[in-house]
Amino acid sequence: MPIRIGRIQRDIEAIAAFTATPGEGATRPTFSAEWRAARDYVADQLHACGCEVRIDAAANLHARPAGLSWDEPAWLSGSHVDTVPNGGDFDGVVGVVVPLELLRAAAEEGRGNLPLELAVFAEEEGTTFGLGMLGSRAWAGTTGFLALSIAHNAAGESYLRAGQPHGVRAEDIAAETVQRGRYLGMVEVHIEQGASLWRSGERVAIVDAIAGRRQYRARLQGHANHAGSTSMPDRKDALACAAELILALEALAPELSPRAVATVGEIACRPNAINVIPGEVDLSIDFRDPDNAVLDEGHRRIEALVTETAARRGVISLLDWSEALPAEALDVAICERLQAAAERIGLGPLRRAASGALHDAAILAPYIPTAMLFVASRDGISHNPAELSRFEDIAAAAEVLWELVKE
Amino acid sequence: MPIRIGRIQRDIEAIAAFTATPGEGATRPTFSAEWRAARDYVADQLHACGCEVRIDAAANLHARPAGLSWDEPAWLSGSHVDTVPNGGDFDGVVGVVVPLELLRAAAEEGRGNLPLELAVFAEEEGTTFGLGMLGSRAWAGTTGFLALSIAHNAAGESYLRAGQPHGVRAEDIAAETVQRGRYLGMVEVHIEQGASLWRSGERVAIVDAIAGRRQYRARLQGHANHAGSTSMPDRKDALACAAELILALEALAPELSPRAVATVGEIACRPNAINVIPGEVDLSIDFRDPDNAVLDEGHRRIEALVTETAARRGVISLLDWSEALPAEALDVAICERLQAAAERIGLGPLRRAASGALHDAAILAPYIPTAMLFVASRDGISHNPAELSRFEDIAAAAEVLWELVKE
Repeated sequence: MPIRIGRIQRDIEAIAAFTATPGEGATRPTFSAEWRAARDYVADQLHACGCEVRIDAAANLHARPAGLSWDEPAWLSGSHVDTVPNGGDFDGVVGVVVPLELLRAAAEEGRGNLPLELAVFAEEEGTTFGLGMLGSRAWAGTTGFLALSIAHNAAGESYLRAGQPHGVRAEDIAAETVQRGRYLGMVEVHIEQGASLWRSGERVAIVDAIAGRRQYRARLQGHANHAGSTSMPDRKDALACAAELILALEALAPELSPRAVATVGEIACRPNAINVIPGEVDLSIDFRDPDNAVLDEGHRRIEALVTETAARRGVISLLDWSEALPAEALDVAICERLQAAAERIGLGPLRRAASGALHDAAILAPYIPTAMLFVASRDGISHNPAELSRFEDIAAAAEVLWELVKE
Repeated sequence: MPIRIGRIQRDIEAIAAFTATPGEGATRPTFSAEWRAARDYVADQLHACGCEVRIDAAANLHARPAGLSWDEPAWLSGSHVDTVPNGGDFDGVVGVVVPLELLRAAAEEGRGNLPLELAVFAEEEGTTFGLGMLGSRAWAGTTGFLALSIAHNAAGESYLRAGQPHGVRAEDIAAETVQRGRYLGMVEVHIEQGASLWRSGERVAIVDAIAGRRQYRARLQGHANHAGSTSMPDRKDALACAAELILALEALAPELSPRAVATVGEIACRPNAINVIPGEVDLSIDFRDPDNAVLDEGHRRIEALVTETAARRGVISLLDWSEALPAEALDVAICERLQAAAERIGLGPLRRAASGALHDAAILAPYIPTAMLFVASRDGISHNPAELSRFEDIAAAAEVLWELVKE
């Protein structure tokens, strides 16, 4: 096998060093200096093994071997190098360094026309501009100019403005989208970010479905009042209302399905003072399941929960639906070819899994036949500095992909 | 009666105009430009009616009629002009403008030796430097140099440093404390900040006890993880743990006593991202009751609640006890003299009440015979821009105090 574990490790460690929070995990907000350094590192590696590199109008990086024209049919493989604040070193990065290693291996083997395009998508996490997978969405053509001009970072800059120094060309966003005929299929390699593979001792799995996601922003308006002189029955405490809602959502998920997950990850309390009863609380709700019927049922239950909990406490509630992505079944034929490839190299049979997390692959699945490979995550820990996957497991996924692409 | 409602109204409106959040309530953090402007306004009014004004080493303002020396026994009356963020126009301010009006009325009546000292205490709310009643504590001698050097504002400045331009003299803090022999007694006028008087149509009440307060800071350390790929049973969600605690504290207070109140007013969640399970949450707990036995019992229950709730969820908990102020019974003789004064002017008999809120009066009660007058608060709303008390009710309290002081 031409795949080298050592190079994969070196890439991951090199990218990990680009962080705004050294010693406290990977922090590479999209369009930050650290994000750019990571993308530049990948581009340098690609140039070094004879690839051509392009930045599309949404600032996604694409690379192909110099011997393969941009019009020829090729496999697409890629992921992202942006991170959540204080995230891990493997989320996204694994899916970039695997095709990078394949292109490097191909160059060494004299296969300067390996039908493989690498992609680094911008703003997958959504923690910088408030909406996940913005780069792949823009390239897929599902998120146009308007959304990119509205989405803004903490400094108040829009995606279009903040991305300009990194290749964003607002005028070309609408035209420069994925051309189906150029792609044989898409395979994104990603860490599982759950504990299932690690627990069972499996190294790699084939992902044949991606959970859909509904996201909401709720505002609860109670009454700010003095924490000492307002009797308990006289209160309209927005934070107590939020607490009841958080626990109800935690209980709702397992009622709906064993695969459903519901998370309140973000909360803001006003005035947020030790001696003032909270007057207003904003919170986010993230709800996922791989079954669209469960998503619909969950949506109805979440709306009812917010309304009823607030009403019972005399609190005013507002619920905004900020995102709805359907569950995506991935391409059956590619899953079978990955299975065959894994068996040929002595790794398979691989388990079929559904991804609870969303990925750029979910965005591209309606346009390109798509599948994913999962690599085991230690204890399922992700979005956390303790995130870890074994380099040998990542190399095993690379070998499966190599076996598919070189056919 | 020489007390003029119109002047009281004018003072309150003038001070209300000094706010960092015009149109969104009173925001006068201690040592801010707005706070200083309010204190300067009071000083100007005092000078105009022939008073001498002094700033003590902790930046509290004191004023006496020029005809009364600083050594003669006098009544003390005062409160504060600092506010919580987006607070109301009456909290604290009422207790400053009432003795101001008395001193003005005395000057008009040619009583240039009225035995009354006005005080404006700094940092009563504790929302700027993290600890309430810092100014009166320093003057009472219960909070020394060390605490004032440690307490800091959001800009990272200590009370000693931030207060320097406003009169704080670190070197004199220890020496310049209340001299008991100079005071006949202390009467603080304050809005009730509860709904009891307003509901029953009473205008003024005599406060004969102040609830004690325990404050805590809790830290809950769970595990930050991916909101999509981490199954519900695998989570250690610090915010869900906090939610359970918030609801348990809400239920605890009425179990302990009908007067007990428990509040979580402040919360911080990390990393606070829509797609990340909260890894760490900090929250404040404020717990009050006018009975010290209930405070002790509540303390034990709160410690147990935090420990047990966190342990059951596999979350690590830390609980810091940030303040413990005992319940204070106020001076029986002064309460009786206030009652007699109210009856003489045709206002009484006044109800006796316990204050759920802490006040500078609670700090001074161990050193000076102390009582308070409460003025009705509309619907009990306080620490809120909608806070309101009727000017005629404030004037009624001023008349009771005038009747006591002029004896």
